[in-house]
Amino acid sequence: MVNKCFFLVLCVSSMLAVSWGAKVRHYEWEVGYLFWKPDCIEKVMIGINGQFPGPTIRAKAGDTIVVEVKNSLHTEGVVIHWHGIQQRGTPWADGTAAISQCAINPEESFVYRFKVDKAGTFFYHGHFGMQRAAGLYGALIVDVADGEKEPFSYDGEFNLLLSDWYHQDISTQSVGLSSKPFRWIGEPQTLLINGRGHYGCSLAAHALDGVSECNITSDQCAPLTLLVLPNKTYRLRIASTTSLASLNLAISNHKMVVVEADGNYVEPFEVDNMYIYSGDSYSVLLTTNRNRSSNYWISTSVIGRLPKTAPALAVLNYRINPPTRYPNSKPPVSPAWNDFARSQAFTSKILARRGTATPPPTAGRRIKLLNTQNMLNGYIKWSINNVSLTLPSTPYLASIKHRLSGAFDAAAPPETFPESYNVMIPPQNPNTTRSSGVYALQFNVTVDVILQNANALAVNVSEVHPWHLHGHDFWVLGYGEGKFSEKDVARFNLRNPPLRNTAVIFPYGWTALRFVTDNPGVWAFHCHIEPHLHMGMGVIFAEAVHLVPRIPTEAIACGLMGKRLVNHKP
Amino acid sequence: MVNKCFFLVLCVSSMLAVSWGAKVRHYEWEVGYLFWKPDCIEKVMIGINGQFPGPTIRAKAGDTIVVEVKNSLHTEGVVIHWHGIQQRGTPWADGTAAISQCAINPEESFVYRFKVDKAGTFFYHGHFGMQRAAGLYGALIVDVADGEKEPFSYDGEFNLLLSDWYHQDISTQSVGLSSKPFRWIGEPQTLLINGRGHYGCSLAAHALDGVSECNITSDQCAPLTLLVLPNKTYRLRIASTTSLASLNLAISNHKMVVVEADGNYVEPFEVDNMYIYSGDSYSVLLTTNRNRSSNYWISTSVIGRLPKTAPALAVLNYRINPPTRYPNSKPPVSPAWNDFARSQAFTSKILARRGTATPPPTAGRRIKLLNTQNMLNGYIKWSINNVSLTLPSTPYLASIKHRLSGAFDAAAPPETFPESYNVMIPPQNPNTTRSSGVYALQFNVTVDVILQNANALAVNVSEVHPWHLHGHDFWVLGYGEGKFSEKDVARFNLRNPPLRNTAVIFPYGWTALRFVTDNPGVWAFHCHIEPHLHMGMGVIFAEAVHLVPRIPTEAIACGLMGKRLVNHKP
Repeated sequence: MVNKCFFLVLCVSSMLAVSWGAKVRHYEWEVGYLFWKPDCIEKVMIGINGQFPGPTIRAKAGDTIVVEVKNSLHTEGVVIHWHGIQQRGTPWADGTAAISQCAINPEESFVYRFKVDKAGTFFYHGHFGMQRAAGLYGALIVDVADGEKEPFSYDGEFNLLLSDWYHQDISTQSVGLSSKPFRWIGEPQTLLINGRGHYGCSLAAHALDGVSECNITSDQCAPLTLLVLPNKTYRLRIASTTSLASLNLAISNHKMVVVEADGNYVEPFEVDNMYIYSGDSYSVLLTTNRNRSSNYWISTSVIGRLPKTAPALAVLNYRINPPTRYPNSKPPVSPAWNDFARSQAFTSKILARRGTATPPPTAGRRIKLLNTQNMLNGYIKWSINNVSLTLPSTPYLASIKHRLSGAFDAAAPPETFPESYNVMIPPQNPNTTRSSGVYALQFNVTVDVILQNANALAVNVSEVHPWHLHGHDFWVLGYGEGKFSEKDVARFNLRNPPLRNTAVIFPYGWTALRFVTDNPGVWAFHCHIEPHLHMGMGVIFAEAVHLVPRIPTEAIACGLMGKRLVNHKP
Repeated sequence: MVNKCFFLVLCVSSMLAVSWGAKVRHYEWEVGYLFWKPDCIEKVMIGINGQFPGPTIRAKAGDTIVVEVKNSLHTEGVVIHWHGIQQRGTPWADGTAAISQCAINPEESFVYRFKVDKAGTFFYHGHFGMQRAAGLYGALIVDVADGEKEPFSYDGEFNLLLSDWYHQDISTQSVGLSSKPFRWIGEPQTLLINGRGHYGCSLAAHALDGVSECNITSDQCAPLTLLVLPNKTYRLRIASTTSLASLNLAISNHKMVVVEADGNYVEPFEVDNMYIYSGDSYSVLLTTNRNRSSNYWISTSVIGRLPKTAPALAVLNYRINPPTRYPNSKPPVSPAWNDFARSQAFTSKILARRGTATPPPTAGRRIKLLNTQNMLNGYIKWSINNVSLTLPSTPYLASIKHRLSGAFDAAAPPETFPESYNVMIPPQNPNTTRSSGVYALQFNVTVDVILQNANALAVNVSEVHPWHLHGHDFWVLGYGEGKFSEKDVARFNLRNPPLRNTAVIFPYGWTALRFVTDNPGVWAFHCHIEPHLHMGMGVIFAEAVHLVPRIPTEAIACGLMGKRLVNHKP
């Protein structure tokens, strides 16, 4: 009852606050477990309003989104993060448990209210424990505001939300990752497109040797078909919320023109296939100018790790063909999983579209973050500058804003790593530390972050990690091989670096990012691979928190902040 | 940090509060998931301090127990209920989520502090969702106070905590029970004694046909052996925390003398085997007066439902024999699962030991509770007087004490059911209702509760239900077949009815209970079968809540009470 009242009050005030033409869009969501067959195998998943993936949010730039989330999980808390939305002025709506808010308790509700500033392809997902990997995600698409135009044209569009799927429940996964001896989750059983995939079989079995035909037993795993007309241009919005997998996507016989990355326009470039890491989103333009009597495979495959998961397939169906006809051909063959030169070449083509804001020419602060795999009392962890992230029970946003002492580790994590560290070999002293400490960022400073990759615990192993920043887009100034050095600064691209919210570090390489601290809040910056974050691969940026306006108490009434509020010291 | 301080303050005050000779016993528990092999098959379970079952609490009557519970489940809340402990003066420590307290959030701690008033065999378990069925339980044993004596003597004692175990995780179980179509959890895979059992094999395979020998692959499923000396008397403390199963326990060639039930002395009686329902606890005396060159099976079997689960076996090992030698004989054969006459005969032997307080001769209020299985919008539910229990997000103890409106259904559930209801056939109108309403009980009233069983949804089906009352022992005044009628009152046993906290209703029968409302608090009264409670089979007694002393805010700062506290209206 009280939640409803609060909800209504917000609606009224929001109608006053939004600008002319913009809308307040309301959603009522119930998050709960459900039986579902994403790959024709039934499992328990987390869904929203009884469906998986969750409902698509569609809005226009400048709109205000209001989502009342009711938690109907039996015993678990929940939050929802709006991936790519910067939450300017509403950092408590970022949906990160223990960082921006308290988890919503079972049977309780929380109202997310935030503005979608700019057009683009985004998504949302759980950000508590490994709930994203249980299926808690969906698409969030923002069109240009009324009267505005995209800098490219198209006749229709489709949305492709890519993910991977494990048959093992997330409880078992997360306990295994936190166990001694360590239990790795392995490769996903199935890749999904819009929540649909096929386990142990292929839609293209008729064209392949030694592969079983699929027996589609449920609408929930019915193949996705994109019905298109010949000689039209379609916009495909493609985003990846995979738990582990890096992906390559191709459409047989068709080229794609990349026009958007993470909600930012890029200088258009044509590709035969594209690389998509967890946390990435893109728009590509597809022109249906091929033989109209054929249908074509859309295929997405694992790259970056030795693939043990079959590609996911969907059908590009020219409408003159019966909609259920599978292409006769073999699906497109993915590039070699370990052809990093090729994946780097794709990444290097992503440049800001002319007219995009350029970065400040110099940075006021540089933070170098060394990514290492380590041991902590026999447990395997990922560490940044030898600190493995552990989250406190009181959300940082509350404890920093209200200066609560003892809520997290007071010592700041290191700003860099030893010059002598050899990134090409396993850590010589694999022992690491745990901390909930934060990087405090002053307001209006240009910050450079150098993400430095290294060899993992095993020799000759260095993995791709897609790092995602909350609260900001950053400019990607450059990539390099080996250890970053001062002379690399001269190679930074300051002319047309792309704006992104997610950027990879390649094996044994570095990636340089720049952003301006103009958005007060507490922002997670982390590897978007779910098990890696669970194992500590992230840092926290506390950005000018004193400038955050009054935080709604319902977001932060837990942990020490809950005790303080209850003890009447607001 | 704050929790630690609070903990220390409590210690100091408790030292002052407890009477001479009594102790304050401190425990620090961390509740978390762990891999475990209770039946030699590895699964993820909930354990305490890295072990399953949880640590045994051992105290003396009059002691104060202080348990600091740290919740290390990744995303789930947790509470712990102290089954059989009456929590006089501390109803907020009863450990029932949404009833007596808020669930403890992940990474947070809560301190349970309560007095154990009287000696007896008790246990503790999770009381949120179906967490008990995930393994969250352990033993709680209270010895007589220093200088006091038990009314029987023995040379040694053993503790047998009986349970059942499902290989399916509780998330899947609870989602299935809440699904349309309904998915029944089926029979347990394994019975456990002190957390150990054997799946798909028998320790007695050498004496049985067509049964596999067990390959014991882990200490976690090592057979339990009771090492005894000949011609001694041992006290066996036996309790059942099963999720579903009703049990029969027997020891080959030995008789048992029942002396305690649910922490109350009973008039001793000898049996060949005993019936134990979920929520029951007993002490029996066992005299080792048989052939000392043999060992003997301790066997527990499913009764009350068609058994599909193998008996659990342990070894009574006379110490002159090598400790690993299994008995050569077959295990004792359990009575027929549906021999309710025999199980009723056992129950009827349980009578209060001479000297036990007798009940008031008449009751001031009678509540008749009809147990029915029903449908609610296509979902299968259990209902009491056509109301299926649903729990609110604000603990009743808080909302009633602080008169919060809108926290639960204001309408009280019905005090009885229609006279015309035919308990021998399925419900003629199976549609039921849901409510979070409560039975409000005035202080110092003698209340009779008549539990009335009935036919379930299918014809010729009526099940055993063990009902457990929190906050009280009750006198069991009698059992009867068919529908309770006014003339049955004359048959009530007012001379030596046993005091219990759990009592069964037999198929198509009724059970009459009496208690005095001398313990202010909010108390659950429910079927102790975990899936039945999940499906609504319980009621709430709100007993003289205005007399409850000040409730610690840390127990109730959630839901509407959390909002009220945060808004500074204590």
